[in-house]
Amino acid sequence: MSYFTFEGKQIYYEIHGEGKPFIVLNGIMMSTASWKAFVPAFSAANQLILMDFLDQGQSERMTGEYSQGIQAEVVLALMDHLGLEKATVMGISYGSEVALRFAVKYPERLERLELFNVTARTGAWLQDIGDGWNLAARNCGEAYYLTTIPVIYSPEFYIKQKEWMAHRREVLTPVFGNPAFYEAMIRLTNSSRDYDVSDQLHKITVPTLVVSCENDYLIPMPEQRFLAEHIPNCEYVVIPNCGHASMYEKPMLFASLALGFLNNPTTEYPIG
Amino acid sequence: MSYFTFEGKQIYYEIHGEGKPFIVLNGIMMSTASWKAFVPAFSAANQLILMDFLDQGQSERMTGEYSQGIQAEVVLALMDHLGLEKATVMGISYGSEVALRFAVKYPERLERLELFNVTARTGAWLQDIGDGWNLAARNCGEAYYLTTIPVIYSPEFYIKQKEWMAHRREVLTPVFGNPAFYEAMIRLTNSSRDYDVSDQLHKITVPTLVVSCENDYLIPMPEQRFLAEHIPNCEYVVIPNCGHASMYEKPMLFASLALGFLNNPTTEYPIG
Amino acid sequence: MSYFTFEGKQIYYEIHGEGKPFIVLNGIMMSTASWKAFVPAFSAANQLILMDFLDQGQSERMTGEYSQGIQAEVVLALMDHLGLEKATVMGISYGSEVALRFAVKYPERLERLELFNVTARTGAWLQDIGDGWNLAARNCGEAYYLTTIPVIYSPEFYIKQKEWMAHRREVLTPVFGNPAFYEAMIRLTNSSRDYDVSDQLHKITVPTLVVSCENDYLIPMPEQRFLAEHIPNCEYVVIPNCGHASMYEKPMLFASLALGFLNNPTTEYPIG
Amino acid sequence: MSYFTFEGKQIYYEIHGEGKPFIVLNGIMMSTASWKAFVPAFSAANQLILMDFLDQGQSERMTGEYSQGIQAEVVLALMDHLGLEKATVMGISYGSEVALRFAVKYPERLERLELFNVTARTGAWLQDIGDGWNLAARNCGEAYYLTTIPVIYSPEFYIKQKEWMAHRREVLTPVFGNPAFYEAMIRLTNSSRDYDVSDQLHKITVPTLVVSCENDYLIPMPEQRFLAEHIPNCEYVVIPNCGHASMYEKPMLFASLALGFLNNPTTEYPIG
Repeated sequence: MSYFTFEGKQIYYEIHGEGKPFIVLNGIMMSTASWKAFVPAFSAANQLILMDFLDQGQSERMTGEYSQGIQAEVVLALMDHLGLEKATVMGISYGSEVALRFAVKYPERLERLELFNVTARTGAWLQDIGDGWNLAARNCGEAYYLTTIPVIYSPEFYIKQKEWMAHRREVLTPVFGNPAFYEAMIRLTNSSRDYDVSDQLHKITVPTLVVSCENDYLIPMPEQRFLAEHIPNCEYVVIPNCGHASMYEKPMLFASLALGFLNNPTTEYPIG
Repeated sequence: MSYFTFEGKQIYYEIHGEGKPFIVLNGIMMSTASWKAFVPAFSAANQLILMDFLDQGQSERMTGEYSQGIQAEVVLALMDHLGLEKATVMGISYGSEVALRFAVKYPERLERLELFNVTARTGAWLQDIGDGWNLAARNCGEAYYLTTIPVIYSPEFYIKQKEWMAHRREVLTPVFGNPAFYEAMIRLTNSSRDYDVSDQLHKITVPTLVVSCENDYLIPMPEQRFLAEHIPNCEYVVIPNCGHASMYEKPMLFASLALGFLNNPTTEYPIG
Repeated sequence: MSYFTFEGKQIYYEIHGEGKPFIVLNGIMMSTASWKAFVPAFSAANQLILMDFLDQGQSERMTGEYSQGIQAEVVLALMDHLGLEKATVMGISYGSEVALRFAVKYPERLERLELFNVTARTGAWLQDIGDGWNLAARNCGEAYYLTTIPVIYSPEFYIKQKEWMAHRREVLTPVFGNPAFYEAMIRLTNSSRDYDVSDQLHKITVPTLVVSCENDYLIPMPEQRFLAEHIPNCEYVVIPNCGHASMYEKPMLFASLALGFLNNPTTEYPIG
Repeated sequence: MSYFTFEGKQIYYEIHGEGKPFIVLNGIMMSTASWKAFVPAFSAANQLILMDFLDQGQSERMTGEYSQGIQAEVVLALMDHLGLEKATVMGISYGSEVALRFAVKYPERLERLELFNVTARTGAWLQDIGDGWNLAARNCGEAYYLTTIPVIYSPEFYIKQKEWMAHRREVLTPVFGNPAFYEAMIRLTNSSRDYDVSDQLHKITVPTLVVSCENDYLIPMPEQRFLAEHIPNCEYVVIPNCGHASMYEKPMLFASLALGFLNNPTTEYPIG
């Protein structure tokens, strides 16, 4: 429940627990509050660091267009502010894009890297999806909900968690119709327009975990396969029957993967 | 280039070539014209029968809500009109939904059945996608384009066919903004709201081909796996690196699959 | 039921039907007789040409080691013998290896190419499997059966076709224990030791169909994906729930794929 | 480096570290020594318990046929011997079969369960593979090596770890030719002939992790999918580009998965 200042903007962050620093970066529609269910597990033996990106949650709003690259600078500034020379950084979706931007620019500041549901670049297809979201956002809250949510959750989860989804719709629709919210969402979405680290992945030398979800129809599996093939020191794992919102669809497994890789006491397994 | 009358409505159809009757049913945004590139191959040794559904192409428009079930009656009426006791029916997406409705209601009128990119039911997830499309349709042509097209084409095709996609966008955006067009699209989309043949698949006893596309993010592979497991006499095949619009993304393979199953002279292969 | 002479050796072949020439090349344990169930369909509208490789079926036995490359010369000699300038060549497993050797050496003699369950090279892994088969062959018929058959058929087929498998075991075990048979099998297996067309695939310019089977544990799917990525004019399709012996496990689908690609009247599908 | 007595037989076990008890059960060709590279990580914050099954490693040899069920009793006896009321049990392959037998018989003795590369039953296909291994074992060490090893390691690992594989072959071939070794292997293989827990999986109520490997051609992915669908409280994850010997092919990821699930401080993630 703290703030620090980045280029004159207030950035909200939270610290929970003690141990190896573990910075967790939000997806685009999330905020530090989205991790509530994970705080006990993530902070049990580690120093969990949550933060809201610029234009997100309790951090300050932006005006006009900006590049997502600035969010990587926010991460760096937070680490400096906390006096952390190194940390393990984990992200999901937009948060993993920022993590990757950070990783190729400041590889020496990483201990390990964990990437859930992320691509190496905003291609023409993803760009059009984002542009569609933005048009829906200005249409109405219901349009935004119906354009984004079915892409984010898997059909299986939709069916199984019918009531939870219905409740979510009730809660989110008015939020999505709030101009302050959706204008920030539009800016955040546009900020990844220039995202492309596809030819810089060799710079990442820390142990990296890449996680794909079989039914992720927003950032499909071929994208993570590309990452796994181009990041030198990379472990790659797939969650079946899971959509883009892996943290909500498979929270226990999500946490096990994140913690297992974070706390694995060694990367040296001399076989034979 | 003919019409017949169904419950007072004009239904447009085309017949090409001679041979075994092969009825091809359109996807929701398509029309008989969409099959232009396939007419030579499909009619070379078969009687190709194309038709526009009610509210589609050159068939008459509807007013108000209706169930997709009526489209299966149109298919039956066309067969009666042409004096066909049996035919092989092939469909893609919406067309395959109609084909499945027809198959469970009039199984005795089928010779064989070919199902591309289809589900057995409109679940909550697919319903929300459809509702989102409908909201986008009334927003503007660009919103409709950006909400539907990236779901229909695979990321790989988007990248490879950059110019074709750009041209398509130019052509489709004004069409999508035309109220006569999008109001029909909204009605067609809503007509599959009550679609569910999932517990009637055992009624289909003719040889059936089910085709999945690996990157179909509108009607994903688990849906076709369900069909393949529940239709008694079913062959199942998967096209890798292909999205929902399989006929555009892999036309040569699409045609080979359709023709190979249609014209296979026997279903009896006594092995051993 | 004819023979022709290749380098002093008698080569057995069969011709069925009339139409486009369609040369079908056997897998290693097969012979022309193995295609019995497919002859009606394959010859209904095409000139089906079956042949036994050197050391196989009713063709003459070899002595000593030789390279599989010679089998591609046999195919060429058969085409010359029959006065065929071009033909579509289809193969499965060993037969597709020969088809690929032929394709990169004599691309101008192909009309189209169909490749089921094949790799581009005999790697160290496949070599060890072959060496294990050869040791088993000299051990006893039962050892050869138990070492080869479970690798060739999928677990699912094994379970479903319990009786057929039991019958097959009864029939094959004595055959496999016959020195004339297994010595030929050993020579055939060894003949693909030097097989590697992986860097010549660009020479294949005819329309090519590559078929993978999801449960092929002898020549797994990554092998066919490699072919599909490196053969310029290639269509690629996957059969789920099917092992290496696709022609036995999914005969109707196998035939539909083979015939559909063979008889597709055009490769030109100008989309848009 | 200790022993205890089970039904008059000496059972070898090792204990490393302190913390939550973590019992790790060997695959069929393994022994406690096989986990050497994992001991530091597995014992860093947990009480790692390794053991050799009857007929394995430094435990006593058996004579004649027996059921694998006895190995589950050994696990129980070891827990009693150590005064452990509950423990997390992890196994790979044969070890996971024993873990599953234990889990359905003594569910109240489990804390959590981790299952790598395992099936719910020895079907006809797997049985034939085992019978083939046994015939190869009595043939010669080289035959045993060439029949088992390519099924256990993925083609990709074979190619990448060429030297390690060559070394392994050199070391293993004489071991495999030793009658004391291969007679024990034959007995162990035969002991899983009666293995079938497929209709008892509902008895497992503890949090369970099931891990599949994409290129596991001995216990392929459909087997683990069955487990994941039938064990009530189950998390399921897939390792791409990995064969049956996942602990050797992806040791860092293997350890991360095992430790992450073992040490996840909670299974409660109240989402929403």
